[in-house]
Amino acid sequence: MKIIVDAMGGDNAPEAIVAGAVQAINAQKDLTVVLTGDKERIEKILRSGEGNEEKPYSYDPTRLEIVHCAEVITNDDVPTVAIRQKKDSSLVVALKILKEDEEAKGFVSAGSTGAVLTGALLRVGRIRGISRPAVCPVLPTAKGGKVLLIDAGANAECKPVNLCHFAIMGTAYAKAMGISSPRVGLVTNGTEEHKGDPLHQESYQLLKNLAGIRFVGNVEGRDIMSGDIDVAVCDGFSGNIALKTTEGTALAVMSVIKENIKASFWAKIGYALFMRKAFKNIKRVLDYSKYGGAVLLGIDKVVVKSHGSSKAESVCASILQARDAAANGLTETIKEMLSQVDLEAIGSEA
Amino acid sequence: MKIIVDAMGGDNAPEAIVAGAVQAINAQKDLTVVLTGDKERIEKILRSGEGNEEKPYSYDPTRLEIVHCAEVITNDDVPTVAIRQKKDSSLVVALKILKEDEEAKGFVSAGSTGAVLTGALLRVGRIRGISRPAVCPVLPTAKGGKVLLIDAGANAECKPVNLCHFAIMGTAYAKAMGISSPRVGLVTNGTEEHKGDPLHQESYQLLKNLAGIRFVGNVEGRDIMSGDIDVAVCDGFSGNIALKTTEGTALAVMSVIKENIKASFWAKIGYALFMRKAFKNIKRVLDYSKYGGAVLLGIDKVVVKSHGSSKAESVCASILQARDAAANGLTETIKEMLSQVDLEAIGSEA
Repeated sequence: MKIIVDAMGGDNAPEAIVAGAVQAINAQKDLTVVLTGDKERIEKILRSGEGNEEKPYSYDPTRLEIVHCAEVITNDDVPTVAIRQKKDSSLVVALKILKEDEEAKGFVSAGSTGAVLTGALLRVGRIRGISRPAVCPVLPTAKGGKVLLIDAGANAECKPVNLCHFAIMGTAYAKAMGISSPRVGLVTNGTEEHKGDPLHQESYQLLKNLAGIRFVGNVEGRDIMSGDIDVAVCDGFSGNIALKTTEGTALAVMSVIKENIKASFWAKIGYALFMRKAFKNIKRVLDYSKYGGAVLLGIDKVVVKSHGSSKAESVCASILQARDAAANGLTETIKEMLSQVDLEAIGSEA
Repeated sequence: MKIIVDAMGGDNAPEAIVAGAVQAINAQKDLTVVLTGDKERIEKILRSGEGNEEKPYSYDPTRLEIVHCAEVITNDDVPTVAIRQKKDSSLVVALKILKEDEEAKGFVSAGSTGAVLTGALLRVGRIRGISRPAVCPVLPTAKGGKVLLIDAGANAECKPVNLCHFAIMGTAYAKAMGISSPRVGLVTNGTEEHKGDPLHQESYQLLKNLAGIRFVGNVEGRDIMSGDIDVAVCDGFSGNIALKTTEGTALAVMSVIKENIKASFWAKIGYALFMRKAFKNIKRVLDYSKYGGAVLLGIDKVVVKSHGSSKAESVCASILQARDAAANGLTETIKEMLSQVDLEAIGSEA
């Protein structure tokens, strides 16, 4: 299983990316990683062990390839322009390999979301039948499980057919994660069938009858992380707001807890003596990056967008996530599900 | 200052409502509360002290009036029908007093949101110039302050003019809460000026030039509770999702913390010995109901919708909130701000 990794994308590139790639091939013996980027810098990092806790690196060099390229696409670049013009960038070169190398099953980047999405669309292409790829992150739930949120922001404006596609792709990804019959909820402003704007009202009617989907109806924002659904279908606008609101709220809650512990002498003692470990664990559960990145669903191969501020541990998680999704036939499942759907009935354009 | 209270609305009515009303008049000496509802039941509660910790009640009876009415509007009623037909319901009678009694400055109900909103619109009326009233709850922030979210769900479909009105009303309410120059953010799927769907893009341009508004630009879901803004302007659809996502996330985080403390022997000891008090305080900060209810802004008098599951403490907080908003001239401030705005430029319809 070969996964291509953009070594130059993200705030901590290339050190954290290289370190994450080494961790990933050490964790998964069937995995080969191809790093695209500045070969000299990458080799220097591999020699010195920068960004890694155990120096120098120990790994199987036959499963870590480097493909040199001279350019980097940054957050300041306009995605559509950069993808066309920066032909020797780590992102474009990686996507070229992903498209052309049959053994390459997936791609990971911590670079600009816009550039990764645009690049994947232009250089790898969509799955036939999917008009709009979507961003699908994995969130923790109150019950200790995971929930997928789709679309988390690729499409600010959606039609009902897009939300049907999101339900199909989310279901396929949940299945690839081992959930046999994923429960799909439509995130709206109330649970009743008639709730929402016309987009969501129409989508509800289509989702109710969509082949292969276990639709549990409308859900509210408070249900996303409750553990009662596996896939939360959103339009990209409110999905982005919901995703970032979970981040902001978790931070706010942790900050209120910290302040209250600091403010109380006894709580400070209790924390120092007994609770440090439990809190470390809590932070780990709530740290989304440990769950890997967000999958771009609808692209013809597995693409994982790791968080821009990813450190080695999250990069490793994203690479393993791409490997697992590919190994479990994510793209094939989406295609198979699409083949069972009456595309005309849901208004497919592609 | 006279506040009218629907004694029969909400899951814990009338016991919790009566208890909350007594707490409120005991806390605020200039306050008179008028309870509408089943007089016999209310008087029995007042005599027996049901729903209250200190029995029997001790309060100034000249500041607690009861207006008897025989009907109740429930969550099963269709709001528009119930408001017209149940003329002797606690809600309709309360709104009649609010409209007609010049001394009545505000109204509190824990009943159905739809019925309260419809009733307030039909029986009290809108502020001239505001086409769509909005729901505006108060949330805690990471910095220990408060933030207003408007609209939290009254209007699933909005036009740019509605979002301008939300900004004006939210600013007026923040001022009534003592914030001299409230920072207003537009909640979208990114901070850049061009982000969002056409509704939000157009609203951005109008808000930028709106008289009396300190517009700080687009904000993301993660900024709502950061403490960096005072008013978060949303369309009612995504605002409702954002509000409920904060609730769901806070619950999920607290549940993860609880599980981790329960799972560790030492953390359990630390919690029992040292941290119980700090956690009680944390829960208090995160319990939105302690901040009172959501104000319905745009109605010609102060209307506060208390949570359906409100207990006495939240009912008391909502009554004091209505009293403070009225005492600080909320409705007058909205009218004054509207008079300074070029209503035609923002596309006002009313």
